[in-house]
Amino acid sequence: MPSDPGSGPRPGRYTVACIQFEPKIGEVDANLATIETNVEAAAARGASLVVLPELAPSGYVFESDEELARLAGPVPEGKAAAFLVALARRLGIHIVSGIAEAAEGRVYNGALLTGPDGFIGRYRKLHLWDKETLFFAPGDVGLPVFDTPLGKIGIAVCYDGWFPETFRTLADAGAQIVCIPTNWVPMPSQDPAVEAMANTLHKAAAHSNGIYIACADRVGVERGQPFIGQSLILGPDGWPLAGPAHRSEAETLLAEVDLTSIATVRQINAHNHVHADRRRDVYR
Amino acid sequence: MPSDPGSGPRPGRYTVACIQFEPKIGEVDANLATIETNVEAAAARGASLVVLPELAPSGYVFESDEELARLAGPVPEGKAAAFLVALARRLGIHIVSGIAEAAEGRVYNGALLTGPDGFIGRYRKLHLWDKETLFFAPGDVGLPVFDTPLGKIGIAVCYDGWFPETFRTLADAGAQIVCIPTNWVPMPSQDPAVEAMANTLHKAAAHSNGIYIACADRVGVERGQPFIGQSLILGPDGWPLAGPAHRSEAETLLAEVDLTSIATVRQINAHNHVHADRRRDVYR
Repeated sequence: MPSDPGSGPRPGRYTVACIQFEPKIGEVDANLATIETNVEAAAARGASLVVLPELAPSGYVFESDEELARLAGPVPEGKAAAFLVALARRLGIHIVSGIAEAAEGRVYNGALLTGPDGFIGRYRKLHLWDKETLFFAPGDVGLPVFDTPLGKIGIAVCYDGWFPETFRTLADAGAQIVCIPTNWVPMPSQDPAVEAMANTLHKAAAHSNGIYIACADRVGVERGQPFIGQSLILGPDGWPLAGPAHRSEAETLLAEVDLTSIATVRQINAHNHVHADRRRDVYR
Repeated sequence: MPSDPGSGPRPGRYTVACIQFEPKIGEVDANLATIETNVEAAAARGASLVVLPELAPSGYVFESDEELARLAGPVPEGKAAAFLVALARRLGIHIVSGIAEAAEGRVYNGALLTGPDGFIGRYRKLHLWDKETLFFAPGDVGLPVFDTPLGKIGIAVCYDGWFPETFRTLADAGAQIVCIPTNWVPMPSQDPAVEAMANTLHKAAAHSNGIYIACADRVGVERGQPFIGQSLILGPDGWPLAGPAHRSEAETLLAEVDLTSIATVRQINAHNHVHADRRRDVYR
């Protein structure tokens, strides 16, 4: 449920939005225009934090290093990054978006966090999926957590979510909400009638760690590669607050975050705490 | 699908069964009789490995240390353990069962693995749930993996499954199938119309690690505590091979395991392997 702007500021309570849409490969201007329209609409509905898909400004399925180099840019100075920084500043909100980041002769499957006062920080996808390994350099900035007025925000991208260590590491570093720009593809054995395994993985991660997770996926088919939609916003108990979104249509999800609920959820009962109960003496 | 006994031995292929039933607190003789009937039936349907719920011979909700001490016994010499050892020997199968284990003045929420040639090994629940902490000592034998003719078998119990490290540690030690004797209780925010979070957690664990997981839950209400059933057998891609079972009725699940599929599933595509892709340089 969107925030009621008439109720005044409530610390740790705000609305998060995930914008699911269909980026067009190579059409950066058109993609940024779609992003602007959708982010403005989400902000108008009360969103203070907006999450966009993986590589949202550029599209995903690259045919050559040259094509990717043309579509990537430095963060936050490049065209797409500067656009997102200016948009967040103008609307007075925070934005997390996937972005192709060019840096030091490499290109990263990256993400940025930017807010009302400008650029905040970058992430670079750690676990590269399939042919991404041919085009992108693996992430080299770890799993940063950014301390913001909206709480401690972590970022992970798509295949990062296959690895439970991603969420453990972020939660241990204090993350209260993890934003997931993603381009989920169908699993080989996916039955389209059942919940996507990507949804299952993130529900488990939110539940196991007691964190909010906001996944913004894309839709459509790009150069033969289908994407599955089903964007999802999860509470710290693992249950959906919004979504899953449509499998093939653009859709914006909104949900209310209440960071004060995290401590309550993590203390499961008088005897159990989801973090304190870990048997670190045993795990390898 | 049960094995066809006429097709001869196929290395690494066999049928696993999960027996969901309602143990009665304190009625060890009656519980062992129910277990015997159900295990015999599963074996007759081709099961080579049978999984029973947590604390299946004794029941779960204890009122005093004295009551628990009366229902617990040494493993494998005690009444319940010896019964299970003899049953597996007589039927020529492997059994994994939860059991209250008395040892060195303590009681553990334990499990045993026993086979055609007798007792194989023990597990002691690492992560104790709620009032279990008042009655049981925490597990002190780590997360053992047993090398058997049915492959490398790990064991975890109920709340152990909340922690992704449980499955990572077992998979890293070579486990191909993890047997879960469990007594799942409803989560505070569980919507009974949707998939149980316990099912979600184990699907994610099977998928993330590329392992088979066989969960045998109980049903019924014991001293006011309800249990949720929904036993589940999962393949290494995370999808159900059998179940979820009924929420409140006894039911035996059977599924065919093919250990040779694990390597194929873990090598997701030409560029990705679910274990090799981990960024251990980053995780904390």
